[in-house]
Amino acid sequence: MNKNQGKKITVYDTTLRDGAQGEGIHFSTQDKLSYVKRIEEMGSLYVEAGWPGANPRDEELFQLVHELHPPLARIAAFGSTCKVNEAPENSNILLNLLASKAKTITIFGKSWDLHVRDVLRTTNEENLRLIRDSVSFLVSQGREVFFDGEHFFDGFKENPDYALKAIAAALEAGASLAILCDTNGGCLPGEITQGVRAVMEAFSPRELGIHVHNDGGLAVANSYVAVEAGVTQVQGTWNGFGERCGNANLSTLIPLLQLKGGYSVVSDSALLKITSFSRFVAELTNAPFDDKQPYVGRSAFAHKAGMHVDAILKNQRSFEHMDPAGVGNERRILISDQAGKANILDRLRRFEPTISKDDPRVEKTMIEIKALEHSGFQFEAAEGSLDLLILKMLGKFPASPFEVLDYHVWSDPLRGELDSVAVVKVKVGLESVHIASEGKGPVNALDTALRQALVGFFPILGESELVDYKVRVLDGSRGTEAIVRVIIDTRLEHEVWGTIGVSNNILKASTQALLDAINWTIWREKIRATLV
Amino acid sequence: MNKNQGKKITVYDTTLRDGAQGEGIHFSTQDKLSYVKRIEEMGSLYVEAGWPGANPRDEELFQLVHELHPPLARIAAFGSTCKVNEAPENSNILLNLLASKAKTITIFGKSWDLHVRDVLRTTNEENLRLIRDSVSFLVSQGREVFFDGEHFFDGFKENPDYALKAIAAALEAGASLAILCDTNGGCLPGEITQGVRAVMEAFSPRELGIHVHNDGGLAVANSYVAVEAGVTQVQGTWNGFGERCGNANLSTLIPLLQLKGGYSVVSDSALLKITSFSRFVAELTNAPFDDKQPYVGRSAFAHKAGMHVDAILKNQRSFEHMDPAGVGNERRILISDQAGKANILDRLRRFEPTISKDDPRVEKTMIEIKALEHSGFQFEAAEGSLDLLILKMLGKFPASPFEVLDYHVWSDPLRGELDSVAVVKVKVGLESVHIASEGKGPVNALDTALRQALVGFFPILGESELVDYKVRVLDGSRGTEAIVRVIIDTRLEHEVWGTIGVSNNILKASTQALLDAINWTIWREKIRATLV
Repeated sequence: MNKNQGKKITVYDTTLRDGAQGEGIHFSTQDKLSYVKRIEEMGSLYVEAGWPGANPRDEELFQLVHELHPPLARIAAFGSTCKVNEAPENSNILLNLLASKAKTITIFGKSWDLHVRDVLRTTNEENLRLIRDSVSFLVSQGREVFFDGEHFFDGFKENPDYALKAIAAALEAGASLAILCDTNGGCLPGEITQGVRAVMEAFSPRELGIHVHNDGGLAVANSYVAVEAGVTQVQGTWNGFGERCGNANLSTLIPLLQLKGGYSVVSDSALLKITSFSRFVAELTNAPFDDKQPYVGRSAFAHKAGMHVDAILKNQRSFEHMDPAGVGNERRILISDQAGKANILDRLRRFEPTISKDDPRVEKTMIEIKALEHSGFQFEAAEGSLDLLILKMLGKFPASPFEVLDYHVWSDPLRGELDSVAVVKVKVGLESVHIASEGKGPVNALDTALRQALVGFFPILGESELVDYKVRVLDGSRGTEAIVRVIIDTRLEHEVWGTIGVSNNILKASTQALLDAINWTIWREKIRATLV
Repeated sequence: MNKNQGKKITVYDTTLRDGAQGEGIHFSTQDKLSYVKRIEEMGSLYVEAGWPGANPRDEELFQLVHELHPPLARIAAFGSTCKVNEAPENSNILLNLLASKAKTITIFGKSWDLHVRDVLRTTNEENLRLIRDSVSFLVSQGREVFFDGEHFFDGFKENPDYALKAIAAALEAGASLAILCDTNGGCLPGEITQGVRAVMEAFSPRELGIHVHNDGGLAVANSYVAVEAGVTQVQGTWNGFGERCGNANLSTLIPLLQLKGGYSVVSDSALLKITSFSRFVAELTNAPFDDKQPYVGRSAFAHKAGMHVDAILKNQRSFEHMDPAGVGNERRILISDQAGKANILDRLRRFEPTISKDDPRVEKTMIEIKALEHSGFQFEAAEGSLDLLILKMLGKFPASPFEVLDYHVWSDPLRGELDSVAVVKVKVGLESVHIASEGKGPVNALDTALRQALVGFFPILGESELVDYKVRVLDGSRGTEAIVRVIIDTRLEHEVWGTIGVSNNILKASTQALLDAINWTIWREKIRATLV
C-alpha cells in the first residue's frame, strides 16, 4: 500500500471536453456549470471545461465559470496550436483561448510525423514552429500552458527522434507541462513505459502528464504504468466517457492509484464521495451508467454465488478486494438480502432517534424499500418520497391532507401550444373542488390543475416551485409499453428535494411524483418542527 | 506485430459458468445449447458449460451437449475439490463431474491460506490433500484435469510458499494445467507478472493458465502481462460478463493478443466474426451491450469531432488504431454539433456518391442539422431520422406515403391497465381511415393506433418491431414544461435504427419519432434498392 509513500499525482479532468466527444454524451452550458460546482467535492483538480471558439456555447460558458470563480477547481481551456503559416498573434484559436480568461491553457500539437505530412500537410520544421510559437505566445500572456503531444506514442514508435523534438519544442518555449498522448488508444503497456522513460531520460521534466484512450481496453492500465514510469499527472474522464471507446476512467484510476498504488491523488474524504460523484456525472448526461464499473458500479461489490456470500460472512477479505465503504459504495448480497440494514436504520433514526436495530419496523421498512426498488423505484435521488415512506412505516405520517377523486387528461397535439387539458377533482376535509386547466403537454396540464385546485387550501404551494423533471425509461425492450421512472425536484426557499413515481404510463408515474411533491411540501415544515 | 511470432495461446471461455455469476446474467439450458452451437464460429476454444451438481439444470445440459457433440468446441465441466475429510471416491462433487461425460474437468482449490483457515476451517496440510486426491482421482478416470488455483495471487502476496505448494500438489497429482487466479480482481500488473514468473521458475510447466477479475479495471491488462510472462491459456468471458465487475473480456483480449501482441489465438476468419459473436452473446442474455467496448462496440470506431473526421479522410491511421473491418466492425461518422463538413459529406455520399464538397446542398444540410441540434435534436442515436432528413435535403425523399389528419389522446390514469385511448385519422392516397385504439399510457395508445391504421396499406409495418423507447428531459429548469427528446429504436429483421422527436409535449415528441420510424420502415427497402 505504501510503496510509493504518498507521492503526489494530480488529476486533469477532461470529461467536459474530451468526454463530450463520446457518442451520446452532451453537456448543455447549464450542465457544465452544475458540474463545475459539484466537482469541488473532489478537491483541487484541473477541470478542462471546453474549447472556446470551436464550440460557440463554450465562449459563454467560460464567462459564466469566470463569474462563478470556483474556489478549488483549476479551470483549463483547451485548443490547438495556431495554423500552418499563421503567426500566433493572428491566430483566432489562440486569441479565443486567451479571451476565455482561463488561467491554464492546454493546446495540442502534432508529435507524429504521419500527421504532419498527411493531415497538416506541412514540413516537420513548420510543425515544430507552430508548437514553439503558440506555446511562447500564450506564456508571454501570463498563462500556465500545458502541451498535449497528440499521438506521442504512435509517433515515438515510428519516428522517436521527431516525437521527442515536438516535446522539446513545447518545453523550451515555456510549457509548464508536456502530456504524452495515446490518442488512438492502441498502445500496449510496455510501449507506454518505453515512451515515458525516453522522455524522462531526455528532459528530466519536473512534471509529466499522460492522456490515453481505451481502444485496446488498456486505458487504466496504461495510465497506471505511466505513473510507475514517472508521470505525475493523469488525464481522464469520469466513467471513461469519450470518443470511440472512451478515455482513461477516472472513477477507476483515482482509487486504483491511491488504494493499490499508495499514491496521493485526492483526499480521503473525496474518495468517499467518488461513487456518488460518478453516478452524478452519468445522470447529468443521462448516459447509461455501467453497473459493472470497478469501485463505483452498483454491481462492483455485489455477490451472487451462495458459496461466496458464505465465505464473506466468515471473512470479508475472502471475496472483496477492498472495503466498499472506502469509495462510498456498498456491498450487495443478491437474492438473500442482508444489505442495507444500517443505511435504513440510519434513515429511520432521523425521525425516531431511539429506534433499535431489532425493532420490527426496521425489517418491515427494508422489505418495503427492496420491493419498491425491485419494481423500479430508486430513492437515491428522491429523498422526499423516501422520507414520506419512512414516516408511513414509522406510523408517523398524518393522513394525507387531500384526496384526489378523479383526474383526466386530454391532448390534441395538432393544436396550439397549450394543447392539453387536465380535469382534476380533489377533496380537502369536507370541501371538494373540480377544476380544469390547460398546459403545454399532458404532464404540465396535470401539474397546473393539481396546484390550482389545492393552493387555496395550502398557500405554501404558491411558494414552492417545480425545478426539474426527469424521465428515465427502465426497460426499453417493451417499446412504448416500457416502464418509466419520473423524478421531480421541488424547491422551497433554499431547499430542493426529489420525489419519484414509476409506472408504464408516464402520466401515472408523473402523478405519483407530483402528489409526493405536494404532500412533502405541505407537511415538511410541520413534520420537521415536531419530530426533529 | 510479429514480435511473438505467432506463439499459440489457447482460450478457455467461462461465459456460461463464471459469466453467469454476473448480476442480471442468466442462461437457460436452451440458451447454453444455442451458445455451444454458435461458438463453433470461433474455432477450437475450451467452453466451460456449467457446474453439474451445483446447478441441477446443468446435469441435463451436459447430457444434451454430449448428444450434440460439437466438432470444434472442447467442452469442460467445472467444480471444486472434494470436501474436508472426504475421500474423492465418495465425493458427490467429483462424481457429478464424472457423470457429465465432459472430457475436460476443471476444479478449483484454495491456494490462499486465509481461505484455508477462515473459509474451509481446516489445516494447510488437509487442503493440499484435497487438491492432490481430487486431481489424481479424476485423472485416474481418464479425464483431462485443469486446476484453478483460486486466489493464487492474493495467496502468493501473503504466503508465497504455500501458494506454490498448492500448485505443486495439483501438478504432481497429474493436472495437465494449473490456472493462476486473481479471484478478487484487485491485483496490479506487476504483481501478476511476479506471480507468473515464480510459478514458471518453480515448475517450468509446459502450459499455464490465467484467470482474472476486473475489480481494479485491469483484467485485460493483467491477462496480457501474464501472457508476456509465459502463460499459454487465457480464461475469460465474452463482453466481460461475470460476478461483481466481471471477468477478463475475451471480446477485447482475443484481438488485443492477436493484433497487437502478434500471438496466434483464433483464425483470421474467426476474428472477422468477433463483433457479431459478442453482440450475439449480449442478446442471448438480454444484457446491456456496452457500445464503448473496444474492438466490438458500436462506438468503437465512431468519430464525432469534425477535425478527426477530416483527418481520417486524409489517412485512416490518423485516428484509428486498426482497420475496423479486421474484427468485423465498421467505422461510423457521427453527426452532431461538433461535426464538420466532412462528416456530413460522408453521409450525403451514401445516397449520392458523386456529390462534391462544394455542392450547395452540403452547406444547406449542415445548417439544417445544426439548427435542429440547437433546438434539441441529436442525430447520432437517430440514424433513421437522419437518413430521412438527408434524403429530403438531396431532394430524393418521395412524398410521405400517408398523411395524419388528426389525432387525440385521452387518459384516465385511475382506471385499469389500458388507461388511454388514442383516436387517429390518416389518409393514404384517396382513402382515409379513422381508428381508435387503447393502450398502456398515452404513447403506447398512439403507437398502436397509428400502426393499426396503416398496416393494411403497408404490410411491412406488421414485421417491424419497436424495441426501445427513450426519453430525455433537455431543460429541466422549466419543470413539467421542459423540452423532452424522445428516441425510438425500431427493428426490422437484423437491423435496428433510431428515430427522434423533440417537443415540450411528450406526445408530440413521441409522435414525431413514431412517424419517422414508420416512414423509414416503409421507404427503407425502396430507397436502398434505388440509391445504393
